Parts: sequence; C-alpha cells; structure tokens
Amino acid sequence: MTPAQHKHDRPIAALLVPDILALLEEAPGDLAAETEEMHAADLANVVEAMPPERVGEFLRALPPNRAAQVIEYLDDELRAEFLEHVTTEQAAEIISEMTPDDRADVLETLEEKTADDILSDLPDQARQETEKLLQFEPDTAGGLMTTGFVAVEQSLGVEEALAQVRAAARSGRREAMHAIYVVDTDGRLVGVMSLRELLAAPEGAKVADVMHTEIVSVQASADREEVARVTSEYDLVAVPVVDGFGRIVGAITVDDVIDAIVEEQTEDVQRLGAVQPLDDPYFVASFWDVVRRRIVWLVVLFIGAIFTSTAMQGYMTTVGQAAWLTVFVPLIISSGGNPGSQPATLIIRALAVGDVEIADALRIFIRELGQGIALGACLAIIGFVLVMVGTEHAARFGVVVALSVVLVVVVGTVVGSMLPLLLHRVGFDPAVASSPFVASIVDVTGIIVYFTVARSLLGLA
Amino acid sequence: MTPAQHKHDRPIAALLVPDILALLEEAPGDLAAETEEMHAADLANVVEAMPPERVGEFLRALPPNRAAQVIEYLDDELRAEFLEHVTTEQAAEIISEMTPDDRADVLETLEEKTADDILSDLPDQARQETEKLLQFEPDTAGGLMTTGFVAVEQSLGVEEALAQVRAAARSGRREAMHAIYVVDTDGRLVGVMSLRELLAAPEGAKVADVMHTEIVSVQASADREEVARVTSEYDLVAVPVVDGFGRIVGAITVDDVIDAIVEEQTEDVQRLGAVQPLDDPYFVASFWDVVRRRIVWLVVLFIGAIFTSTAMQGYMTTVGQAAWLTVFVPLIISSGGNPGSQPATLIIRALAVGDVEIADALRIFIRELGQGIALGACLAIIGFVLVMVGTEHAARFGVVVALSVVLVVVVGTVVGSMLPLLLHRVGFDPAVASSPFVASIVDVTGIIVYFTVARSLLGLA
Repeated sequence: MTPAQHKHDRPIAALLVPDILALLEEAPGDLAAETEEMHAADLANVVEAMPPERVGEFLRALPPNRAAQVIEYLDDELRAEFLEHVTTEQAAEIISEMTPDDRADVLETLEEKTADDILSDLPDQARQETEKLLQFEPDTAGGLMTTGFVAVEQSLGVEEALAQVRAAARSGRREAMHAIYVVDTDGRLVGVMSLRELLAAPEGAKVADVMHTEIVSVQASADREEVARVTSEYDLVAVPVVDGFGRIVGAITVDDVIDAIVEEQTEDVQRLGAVQPLDDPYFVASFWDVVRRRIVWLVVLFIGAIFTSTAMQGYMTTVGQAAWLTVFVPLIISSGGNPGSQPATLIIRALAVGDVEIADALRIFIRELGQGIALGACLAIIGFVLVMVGTEHAARFGVVVALSVVLVVVVGTVVGSMLPLLLHRVGFDPAVASSPFVASIVDVTGIIVYFTVARSLLGLA
Repeated sequence: MTPAQHKHDRPIAALLVPDILALLEEAPGDLAAETEEMHAADLANVVEAMPPERVGEFLRALPPNRAAQVIEYLDDELRAEFLEHVTTEQAAEIISEMTPDDRADVLETLEEKTADDILSDLPDQARQETEKLLQFEPDTAGGLMTTGFVAVEQSLGVEEALAQVRAAARSGRREAMHAIYVVDTDGRLVGVMSLRELLAAPEGAKVADVMHTEIVSVQASADREEVARVTSEYDLVAVPVVDGFGRIVGAITVDDVIDAIVEEQTEDVQRLGAVQPLDDPYFVASFWDVVRRRIVWLVVLFIGAIFTSTAMQGYMTTVGQAAWLTVFVPLIISSGGNPGSQPATLIIRALAVGDVEIADALRIFIRELGQGIALGACLAIIGFVLVMVGTEHAARFGVVVALSVVLVVVVGTVVGSMLPLLLHRVGFDPAVASSPFVASIVDVTGIIVYFTVARSLLGLA
C-alpha cells in the first residue's frame, strides 16, 4: 500500500475480508507473511469486519506478538469475547506481549474470573507490573500510565545514560521513550530530557547538565481531564506520573492522552444532548442500554414540562378573554430556550478548556445580561414586524409579543450562562446543563412572562 | 517548584506578577536567571496576567530564544500586539528562534504588512522554509506541519543514519524527531522507524532492515480532522505529510494534533449550541463579535418558530371548542424536541469519530424508530397518569395527550437522527443539526400532530 492510499477506512477493511478468509482456509501458514505490510490498526479493522466465528482462528494464525498488537486495536467487546474463548495459556501468551498499560486496560474489560486466571499465568515481572497498574481507577493518571518508561540517575555521564537507554530499548517493548526521566538516588523525579537531547549532548557531559528541571508531572490520582489539560497546555509527548513523595511511578504516552481527550469529549457532547454518556460506540451499545441512558433525562424533562401545563392552566381566564394569545405561546417559549442554549454551551466549553472559572461569575453575568438585551432587541423588532405583517392584530398585540421576547431572551441568556457555573460550583459536571435542560427551565418562565405582559398591557384578568 | 505543585493554574501565575514586575524594575538583568526554572507555558501565563504595557519590556529582558518559547505559548492577540510594537529586526530575531511551523502560525496572526517585513528580515533558510509553509491553509495538514523533520536514505547503514540524526539534533531545533523517516533516492517516503528502534538496532544493520514499511501518512491538503483521526486511530506521535508523488514534505507533531483536536471539538460543541464557532476564547472574543455569531442562528430559529404561530392559527376553531387543549401545547412541543436532540447529538458525534457513516442510514432509521416507540410509550404512560391526576379532565383527554406524545416522540427521534446524516450527505457540517435546530423543526410537527389527534378522537372541527 502506498502512503497516499493509507486511509482510516472501514469499507476498505471490509473489502479485504474475503481474500483473508480464503487465505486462512487454504494456506493459514502464509497469513502472517501476507499481512505483514499492514498496520496493526488496519488489520484490527479487518478483524472487526469478519464473521465473529472466524476471529479466533484468524488471530491464532498470527504470531503472538503480532496478534497482541492487533488485539490492542480491537474494540473492547470483540477482544473480550476472543480472550474468553481461547485457553488461559494462549491468552496469557498474547497479553504478555502487550505494553503494561495495555495489558491492564485489556484485563479490566474481561470478567474478573478470566482476568485473574490470565494474570496468574503471566510471567512474574509482567504480573507484578500489571497488578500495580490495576490498582488505579481507569479514568485516573494511574490508570492511563505505563510502567514501561526509562529513568536514569542524575549523577550519570551522558554516555553511560545513553548505554542504559540503548539497553532498555533492546530489552523489550518500552513504549514511553520519547522522554528520558532523571531521578535522584531516592527515585524522585528531578529532571527530564528528550532522547534527542541526550543524543545531541556533547561527549563527557553529565545527565544533570543536559536535563531540564522545569518538570511538568501529574499525581497518580489526577483525573484524565487534568492529564489532558496538562499535555495540551505544555505540548508534551509524554507525562510523567509521580506518587505523593514525588517519585516517578509511570508515564502516560500521548496516544493514551488523545484517546482520553476524545472519550471525554464524547461524554461531554452526549451530556449536551441530554443523553447519559454511552460506554460504547453507537452501534455497539445495545438497544435497551441506549433506551435506559436516554429515558432518565427524558422523564426528568417531561415532568419538568408538566409545569408548563400548570402555568398555562393559571392563565385560562386570560386565554378565555383573548384566545389569540395562545397562538404565540410556542414562539415565546422557543425565544427563551435558544438564547439560553447558546451561552450554556459557550460556558460549558470554556469551563472544560479552562478559559473561565467560577470566580468569573459576575463578569459573565454582566456580559450575558448585555448579550441578552442586544439579542432580545433584535428578535423583538423582527417579532413585531412579523406579527404586524402576518396577522390582523393591532399594534398593541405586536408590542406584547415584542416586549415578551426581550424579557424572555434576557432571562434565557442569564439562566443559560449561570446554570453551568452553578452546577460546576456544587460539584456536578456543567455539561448537565444541556440545551434541553436549559430550554425546559426557561419554558415555564416564558409562559409567565408572556401572560404577565399581556395582562398588564391589554388590561386583561 | 516541585513537580507536585506544578499545575495548570492561572491564579498562581497572577500571584507571581508583582514579584516579576519588581524584578523588572530593580534588576532586569537577573530576570532570565530568576525565571529559568519556570516552564515557558507558565511564564506565558504570567505574561498574560501582567499589565499589557509592561509585556514588551518584560519579553525584551529575556534572551531571544527564551522569549521565542514564551511567545509561542501566548494567546494570539497579545502576541500580535507585541510583535507589531517592537522593531522588525527584534521581531525577526525572536521569530527565527521558533520552529518552522510555529513561525508560520505566528506570522499568519499578524497584519500582512508586518508579516511581510518580518519575513524578509529572516535568515535565508528560515525564510524559505516559512514561505513554503505559509502557502498551505492553516486548517490543513500542510498548515499544521513543520519542515523540521529528519529523513534518512534507506540504503544507509544504521550507524551512518544515527550519525546523521545526531548531527541534525545538534544543528538546531528539529522538533519532529520522535520518528525518523526513510526515503528512497527520489525523496519518496518508503519507511519509518522510531529513534528508539534506530538506537536498538544491531550494529551493522541497514536502515532498510530496521524500518517499518507500514507507513501511515497524510496528503498536505488533508484537513485537520483527517489528521486528528489518523493520529488517534494509529496511535502516532508524529504524522508524515506527503505531496502528490508520495514525497515527504513535512511532519505534524502530536502537540499540534492535540491543539487541532481541541479546537475542532470546541467548534463542534459551539455548533451544537447553535452558535457559529468563535475564533477566540470566551473573554477574548469581543462582545459584538459574539452577538454576531449568535444572532444568525437565533434569527433563523425565530423565523422558523413563527411557523408555530401559523400552525396554531389554523387550529383556532378547535381551540374555540376546547380551550383546555392549549394547556398541553408546550408539553407536546418539548416532548418532540428533547427526544430529537438526543439522537442528533449521538449521530453527530458518531459521524465525527467515524463510528457511523452515510451507508448506515437505513440501519440507523430502523434503530431510532424502535427507540422512538420505546421511549414514546414510556413518556405516554407518565403523561396519561399526570393528566388524569393533575387535571379534572376525562380519560379521553388523557388518551389524546398520551397518543400525541408517542407520535411526537417518534417523529422527533427519527428527524433528529436523520437530519445530521442528510446534512453530512449534502456537504454541511452535521453539527449544524443542533438541539435548538432539531427542536424548532419538530415544534411545528408537534402542534399539527396534537391537534389532528385531538380533532379525530374528540370529534372537534
């Protein structure tokens, strides 16, 4: 495959399936050589596209280290299914070829019994590394990190350090080698340098002369959002993880940080759409699991919406005197919801990327009040014109609609901007302030504002 | 600072400002040494927190290469302001210290005249590299890439290649050194290896024996979403960029990919909230710029909402016969919008991360139809009970509400899931199908469904 054709392309993977199945049938021994040129991620796409009952046979036809690479890229479910259906020895052989962090990640997706069996079948060192990583919550720095990093002592000379690094590189799959960490005699992280800087160092220099002491690190207990923020803020390719004493315990490579950023973002977007975050991709999540994650918010919002009926009932006398008022109820309601969704989304995102914080609440309030007035005035003018043009009502009806629109837009904007801050302040994820949630809060207010304005201006009861 | 204290913390940066300003006053010569231990990103936070009129003085007190590092982390506006107020020579000196891609990025944020002046003041090689990068659109692979990558010929021996790499590492700031690219005699990319693999290679081996030929690359014209997807799919730390002939022209480092992912996500989230994406962080964007980017969608949605009034007007006879029907209009409307926002958000995200595609439309339709029926039935039952308990209406009114809720939920769910696919199909960003947009489409449908059901079941005109 030439580089130009190399694309993230599921359909292409599906096209390769028949050839690969035929090869598996006729000459399974050639499979490894024939697929050697393919990237493990592409081969994983092929596996995901093949009939599930052939997956085991295919993966067993690959050498264990190649199978391990492919399995790392498989989706969780397919991987778990495969590993639970081979013998414990086979599973242990494949898993021991993985990097320590992937090993822990994979074991976490298996049933506890299976995971324990495989774990006890791993070689001693691999088992110990993996057990250490399994102690951390998957969404923390400890859960993301690998123990396969390289650290050298600060007192070493550059050539000695380079020899250690070369030995480590030859010894196995040490993935976190983009940064070389420097420690003191107690294992405390005191410096960092890139492999490039170590290579470029003049002969005879000491590690301590080459290293940077401006270290950016995270605690093992830090959550993955913090890891993502630090990586992006400081442009890192690997983040060292330290314990409470400042001793290095692991490193997080940037590929895992990117995965964390994308997952975190998916959760945020789903919350914004009033869906409890799904654990799996769209088609992988089961039908009833999705129903369950949607129904919670729908019921909350539906019960909230019942209050609109209560509010409406309170104005039935007014409606009796001027039935045409009901014509504009849906318009007024959406006039508040939309300008409310906008600042809610802006603030939720600004909180997520660190552009605003709780302390900015007053500044945000003032700014959004201004925005609400400006936007409300624009919509009110349009509303007035449309009411006058589109209906046969007198100018004072247009004024009722216009004035209600201004007030509702202001209320919506202020509620939409303050709600995420309030949620953040009390410890909830601000992304809970989804557009539907903000809209439903503003709906009732809209009805009250509208009928109150109508009553006062038109002298109704 | 110990690693544990090292946090992404704007307030801490602000606390350091008085000390740093005092130092600048009393002993500007000591400033470089006193701040040496700080990470450039942290120092940039300090600069952002200091009075704007002191920024120039502060940055000029740092050595040019240090100032260049700090400036790379500054926000665009402050950076442009500084560079437009120093002499062209000073600006050129600082900018020539940057990596080629950052150089191009910075020049792009300046006024054209200033950028041209600085460009012509750069050393020849730096100018040529930068001019080449400036030809590409900022949001493409070409715009993200740096020309500071290292490529070696496949025919070289490992030791020769290592010597070349060491020479390159010593020659200047070659940032993209996590991967070493291998080319043929025509400069076409034929392989890749990590610096680690080169180091670990047995003596006497050839580059061609060590390299991987499973290369993942992007075209210079590929957009940044494609770059992000490839990086995340294949767990890369750097993506090589090739021209139409497969010749390597640059490399994108993962820090720039992360920035691109975060920016892309911010834009998507803002579109989901019916805001045209802002170019700047929340407080940096000007008040009227934000108004402008919000008003477009608000006006579209407001005019759309006017159709709800038209629909309502069509049912005034029915309302005349049973005024209580209007009580449930807001409830019915929000019953369609919320279940519509959910699948819209799920599908938009699934399209963005590549979990679904246009070809899945029928499968999605069937699945969402099922979801709509299941969710609609749940809400209808709750609705029926609430109408019976909360109002003094007969059971048949409850049935009207319940039946309308089922139908509206189904319509909302199907519209919400199909709309992003339709937008994607015709070449729009599917994120345009924001919750407010979906809700506003479903609102009119909700009114029509509700009054149609009421008329048939209650025998009204």
